[in-house]
Amino acid sequence: MSAEKLSFEDFRPGRRFVLGPKPVTTEEIIEFASEFDPQPMHLDEAAGRASILGGLAASGWHTSSMFMRMMADSYLLTALAEGAPGIDLMEWRKPVLAGDTLSGHSTVLESRPMRSRPGMGIVKFRHEVENQRGQLVLVSENSVMLRMRPETSA
Amino acid sequence: MSAEKLSFEDFRPGRRFVLGPKPVTTEEIIEFASEFDPQPMHLDEAAGRASILGGLAASGWHTSSMFMRMMADSYLLTALAEGAPGIDLMEWRKPVLAGDTLSGHSTVLESRPMRSRPGMGIVKFRHEVENQRGQLVLVSENSVMLRMRPETSA
Repeated sequence: MSAEKLSFEDFRPGRRFVLGPKPVTTEEIIEFASEFDPQPMHLDEAAGRASILGGLAASGWHTSSMFMRMMADSYLLTALAEGAPGIDLMEWRKPVLAGDTLSGHSTVLESRPMRSRPGMGIVKFRHEVENQRGQLVLVSENSVMLRMRPETSA
Repeated sequence: MSAEKLSFEDFRPGRRFVLGPKPVTTEEIIEFASEFDPQPMHLDEAAGRASILGGLAASGWHTSSMFMRMMADSYLLTALAEGAPGIDLMEWRKPVLAGDTLSGHSTVLESRPMRSRPGMGIVKFRHEVENQRGQLVLVSENSVMLRMRPETSA
């Protein structure tokens, strides 16, 4: 089964993966905010309009979590991925409002074998997510640990 | 009411806010992962043990979202906060495992009035979250926009 999965070697610099589309609903925004970020502009339409966000807006952490799911569905769930040590860059460029639809892409910037973990490599990505009006809402860069194919790492 | 809230002026460099404690349950880890990060090590104890994380481990995005809630409960919900443009730094230093309890602190690094938005300032924080064994699990830096007191911004 692993043989059919994407391994470190498949993530060559320049390779691009499509993210989304992912529609964002009022209910999802309020549900996430209620649990993790209960600030008024993420819970209530009127409070959102009164804020600098201009409407009921997803928490930035919610947008980031939806983006994670878009990466999972696009390539991580079919890859020999072992997680990420963090985020190098995360910019919430524009508010994500109820009714928006998100889409984007992940591009491999660089990849290298890990010295500390034989048989594994680290792949650095740049990610861009935009709304249905073509406006960038999220820009991110991070690195993911991926296992090599057994014949390569042996 | 606003007069009693924390404003930009209250976030002087060096001021420190306590985060947590926040216990992390198996159910929460699986619920978040099912929606946003359905990789096996975040969904299943055996898969977690077989991974480099060493057990059923929260998605990094879940840890970050729990950290957001800790900030909200500590100081953001009682402040004139207007959101954040992104994250400058986010390191997931150690896995967060089911049964862990998270706590930490946010420290103001610097604060300055925003040129582009009169009556608002931007406050940069450094955040550290550790587990019940005193191991750092999350280190982050970000900047939050906060309104000034009316008499100050007039």
